[in-house]
Amino acid sequence: MTQRGTLGVAVIGTGRMGADHVRRISQVTGGARVAAVVDVDAERAKRVAAGVEGCTAYTEPAAAMAADDVDAVLIASPGPAHEAALLTAFEHDLPVLCEKPLTPDAASALRVLQAEQKLGHRRVQVGFMRRYDPEYVELKALLAGGRLGRPLMVHNRHRNVASPPGFTDAMLINDSVVHETDVTRWLLDQEITAVTVLRPAPSPNAPEGLADPQFVVLETEGGALADVEIFVNCGFGYQVQAEVVCECGTARIGDGHVMVTTMAGRWGGTVAQDFVERFEEAYDREVQAWVDATRRGEVTGPSAWDGYAAAAVCEAGVRAQSEGRRTRVDLIERPPFYA
Amino acid sequence: MTQRGTLGVAVIGTGRMGADHVRRISQVTGGARVAAVVDVDAERAKRVAAGVEGCTAYTEPAAAMAADDVDAVLIASPGPAHEAALLTAFEHDLPVLCEKPLTPDAASALRVLQAEQKLGHRRVQVGFMRRYDPEYVELKALLAGGRLGRPLMVHNRHRNVASPPGFTDAMLINDSVVHETDVTRWLLDQEITAVTVLRPAPSPNAPEGLADPQFVVLETEGGALADVEIFVNCGFGYQVQAEVVCECGTARIGDGHVMVTTMAGRWGGTVAQDFVERFEEAYDREVQAWVDATRRGEVTGPSAWDGYAAAAVCEAGVRAQSEGRRTRVDLIERPPFYA
Amino acid sequence: MTQRGTLGVAVIGTGRMGADHVRRISQVTGGARVAAVVDVDAERAKRVAAGVEGCTAYTEPAAAMAADDVDAVLIASPGPAHEAALLTAFEHDLPVLCEKPLTPDAASALRVLQAEQKLGHRRVQVGFMRRYDPEYVELKALLAGGRLGRPLMVHNRHRNVASPPGFTDAMLINDSVVHETDVTRWLLDQEITAVTVLRPAPSPNAPEGLADPQFVVLETEGGALADVEIFVNCGFGYQVQAEVVCECGTARIGDGHVMVTTMAGRWGGTVAQDFVERFEEAYDREVQAWVDATRRGEVTGPSAWDGYAAAAVCEAGVRAQSEGRRTRVDLIERPPFYA
Amino acid sequence: MTQRGTLGVAVIGTGRMGADHVRRISQVTGGARVAAVVDVDAERAKRVAAGVEGCTAYTEPAAAMAADDVDAVLIASPGPAHEAALLTAFEHDLPVLCEKPLTPDAASALRVLQAEQKLGHRRVQVGFMRRYDPEYVELKALLAGGRLGRPLMVHNRHRNVASPPGFTDAMLINDSVVHETDVTRWLLDQEITAVTVLRPAPSPNAPEGLADPQFVVLETEGGALADVEIFVNCGFGYQVQAEVVCECGTARIGDGHVMVTTMAGRWGGTVAQDFVERFEEAYDREVQAWVDATRRGEVTGPSAWDGYAAAAVCEAGVRAQSEGRRTRVDLIERPPFYA
Repeated sequence: MTQRGTLGVAVIGTGRMGADHVRRISQVTGGARVAAVVDVDAERAKRVAAGVEGCTAYTEPAAAMAADDVDAVLIASPGPAHEAALLTAFEHDLPVLCEKPLTPDAASALRVLQAEQKLGHRRVQVGFMRRYDPEYVELKALLAGGRLGRPLMVHNRHRNVASPPGFTDAMLINDSVVHETDVTRWLLDQEITAVTVLRPAPSPNAPEGLADPQFVVLETEGGALADVEIFVNCGFGYQVQAEVVCECGTARIGDGHVMVTTMAGRWGGTVAQDFVERFEEAYDREVQAWVDATRRGEVTGPSAWDGYAAAAVCEAGVRAQSEGRRTRVDLIERPPFYA
Repeated sequence: MTQRGTLGVAVIGTGRMGADHVRRISQVTGGARVAAVVDVDAERAKRVAAGVEGCTAYTEPAAAMAADDVDAVLIASPGPAHEAALLTAFEHDLPVLCEKPLTPDAASALRVLQAEQKLGHRRVQVGFMRRYDPEYVELKALLAGGRLGRPLMVHNRHRNVASPPGFTDAMLINDSVVHETDVTRWLLDQEITAVTVLRPAPSPNAPEGLADPQFVVLETEGGALADVEIFVNCGFGYQVQAEVVCECGTARIGDGHVMVTTMAGRWGGTVAQDFVERFEEAYDREVQAWVDATRRGEVTGPSAWDGYAAAAVCEAGVRAQSEGRRTRVDLIERPPFYA
Repeated sequence: MTQRGTLGVAVIGTGRMGADHVRRISQVTGGARVAAVVDVDAERAKRVAAGVEGCTAYTEPAAAMAADDVDAVLIASPGPAHEAALLTAFEHDLPVLCEKPLTPDAASALRVLQAEQKLGHRRVQVGFMRRYDPEYVELKALLAGGRLGRPLMVHNRHRNVASPPGFTDAMLINDSVVHETDVTRWLLDQEITAVTVLRPAPSPNAPEGLADPQFVVLETEGGALADVEIFVNCGFGYQVQAEVVCECGTARIGDGHVMVTTMAGRWGGTVAQDFVERFEEAYDREVQAWVDATRRGEVTGPSAWDGYAAAAVCEAGVRAQSEGRRTRVDLIERPPFYA
Repeated sequence: MTQRGTLGVAVIGTGRMGADHVRRISQVTGGARVAAVVDVDAERAKRVAAGVEGCTAYTEPAAAMAADDVDAVLIASPGPAHEAALLTAFEHDLPVLCEKPLTPDAASALRVLQAEQKLGHRRVQVGFMRRYDPEYVELKALLAGGRLGRPLMVHNRHRNVASPPGFTDAMLINDSVVHETDVTRWLLDQEITAVTVLRPAPSPNAPEGLADPQFVVLETEGGALADVEIFVNCGFGYQVQAEVVCECGTARIGDGHVMVTTMAGRWGGTVAQDFVERFEEAYDREVQAWVDATRRGEVTGPSAWDGYAAAAVCEAGVRAQSEGRRTRVDLIERPPFYA
């Protein structure tokens, strides 16, 4: 720890997400500072470092993690680089906030699980930021309170204005539906056991080669159903909604009624245009919670197991897309370490 | 026609629905009067007739339909009695408002279709009252206007406080989901081609032998998907909601925000407790529309073809329940008569 | 009574409101028919009568009321003609539904009160249709149920797209705020004792000579306050909202959430464009309730006293506008006849 | 400035608000640390200081402000102590975030204005935190954008569960309505010129001696009206709502629709129970904005002029309460320094 207990963080990756986390740690959240930034693009790393007092630029994660003023690591590099960065952080026994996905597939996620278990204590928090969104938190608390009874179904809507160039059917599962995969597991506290993907006739706004929207049905070990409308070229905005149907009632989040205007024959409000607008507060809270827990010497939040389980469900989801039928999820038995 | 053009209606069946239609025609809607009521229970028929000026009680539909002051027939008897009543009405060439279902299965519905075609002109309006609900009407008009683009998906919620005694898995499809079957066909103007039924772990409030809730996925000839949450023991109220997701936007009905109260730490409103409360206005408008059209010598509204198509989808749905897989809907080619 | 108990109604006045009531009685509501229409414009009366089976056109109310097939009178002529028509109806001892205002001022309303009292039984229902609007009815029932405690304040919003040509400050009170005057008296079951009118800087959309919007504060005998925003050139739609603040909670109506759409970056719904759209159902229910009560030989609904009290409050309101200060309402003591 | 540019803040007053700001600066916001706390209760100051690394306890504001590691001052002591603390801060030329009220009356506020002007540059930000609430910020931006046209009226609702012991009529204005006073000035960018206070019959839940609710009407120099329902014993929750009525439309905030549940016959959500829950994010953003501006060497946010104007309006409001009539607000001409 540096003096005054301020956490020195190395941010790995200085793309959109990484740069945003640098800004967040420097200007929004408390208790930490960016001591190092790492990027294979040395120029970009230097540019970002130049904007932060006392921040050093590196091109190698290992070099940053070896620095004296680095106490913790935030991984925001592309998914394929995560496994190596995580294993290096384990070597330095540094706490890690790893942007999702933990790794791009279940096999590599399993290797991370094994390495963390060898270390003997949890080091990884995975960046499933929806768990820090005030609306999801309120929903989770309501379910945990038990007044609605047991959850039977979850209806999810996940809509983006437009997909980025090169977006594929597999990315629809791995980058988008992965969030519903995690919140379903978290809200219900159950593993997902099977996935079915239905593809209606695509929207004319979908780019060639992408079936959009799709409709995903997840089944859980407890017999609950979660359906997900994923529509990444809906055109009108970014919308994330969830309705949990329980034995004695339902709860819905994501309607986003803040300011209501009336003009020109209509009443209503605006729809967020991207995930930053919708989940900015969730990111702030996620990073603050990670910093706070790390300064207390604890690891909280989504674990490497959550990252592995999400990867396994996504693998099944991509198979379900191509095979056009209900597909079982293959999960190893949960190690007691992650109980 | 009786003098002044008032339509003389014979109401077949004086159970809950029939008695309610007698009240409606006598006291709420205009342009018609109940000239005859028919019930196999002669005492009940007499009791109902006694409350209406100039109304005669019968035990045989044919006798009522032969009466001079009967110009039109409203069939509200149990489903298995519909076919015979319809064929009798055809013999007298009387216009009919037939409560749903048209008949209990596709084969008998097909016989009605054939008989009506032989008659050479449409005589039947089927009682799918949701088509007269102001919210569904507004939704249909919005879709027809084209501003949202083509519909891609429909998300339906259909919840009842509790199921009546003896309610079965098949009735869940035939009596409840049949409504979503019809509105999906009507809103999208497309036939349904396949049905899948998923059954999550049942609610403890479901009576023994009934899997409740269930989740039904309908596919249409145009490639659209309609999902239906059917939950007939939800405990909290009667709720019918629909969200149509189109190329350029979505539209949702059924939230039921009328009066909003704030007290004891909560804001909100009440949920209807039964279908009468939710759809009373739809029933009034349905009957008024039928009376008005009949007095003009026209037949409008859901046709016998709509009744047949709903029966065919429900048959597939019940098969899908028991076989646990996607099931194709068998439909004859649509006769030009019903184009 | 005509045969079958159908009520023969004479409609006095065949302008917009009168013609609409003719349509309503003929085609929408049950139990009555239009037996006569009256208009000083003989051609217009004949045109309207021609569209209704068995309907005779008159130019004199007295002639229509003397006709054998006329059992009841609906007055929809201009306000200044109401007193004479009401007194004529009293001579024939006919039940009357009188469109608001009862008469244009308190003095003439008082003469009507006295004439009705001489008759010895109530004959008049005044056309304050908001009392039949389902939302106001629900609000009244909630207040009557007592769960919210005693009402302390009522916040009203009353907005029109644009005022008709020639609309004056006095008409803002007499034609628009008169409705809030009545619903405040009815919801709280208290007389209004004082009126204050505040005039903010006018909207540029207000026609010359009209101060629009205005803000009216009503005080009741029980010490409650009701404020009214009246804005008749708001441009965007017709909106009537009311929030009652009670000891233990609040209740609000008029938000009008029916269908919610999401498109082009916005969620929301449409605003009604005129009072017919907003209150059509209230008019239907009002006329049906009047027909039903009349056929039972009863008089229900807003009484001539309600018409008089509204006129007295409006007179005070117009004085308050011109004098710019809090103005007391002068009311005679309520006769036991109207208790 | 301390090393790394972290702002060393002295927090004056360690009561509820002061202690909460200590927590906020230490754990929630970034860029600052609590270097000193001051309280006349030396024990309490020590207890609070003990929980923060590197924080010294003082009993005299002047001593804290003279400390080397103090770069800025946050005043959260009782209102009567503000003037002295502000003048001391001016002596040390330290930037100040002063909780509202600036001072308890217009005369003392005026002295602060004069002292700051003598200093030659702005040093004070007043703690009107609603200006940092995301909903008010969105409303302000909408009005500034001009799409709704000029504001004509503002309807405000301000409700608390229950008033603290000893709450008086004057405190209703000075502690509660002062917020609406400030947001009205800010949203409309106009000074308030007159105040009227109406007192309906009090709620039985109001403590003896307090007239609750009250209804306040503010008039602005531009001719707009702002009405405020203030009800500090409403029993059901903490609610702050505002609707701005403009030439071409309206905008409303404060409905607080986040999670919607349906159970036991009702749909709806929860109401916040106190101002911390409702405005926590506003406090966080306010302090962060002050820290950020201070580190940049700027003073932004509500000025001492805003604190003075609020005090002047509140003085007029309290006079209006006791005199029972419209009361003019006395304001000095705005010094160019605060233009």
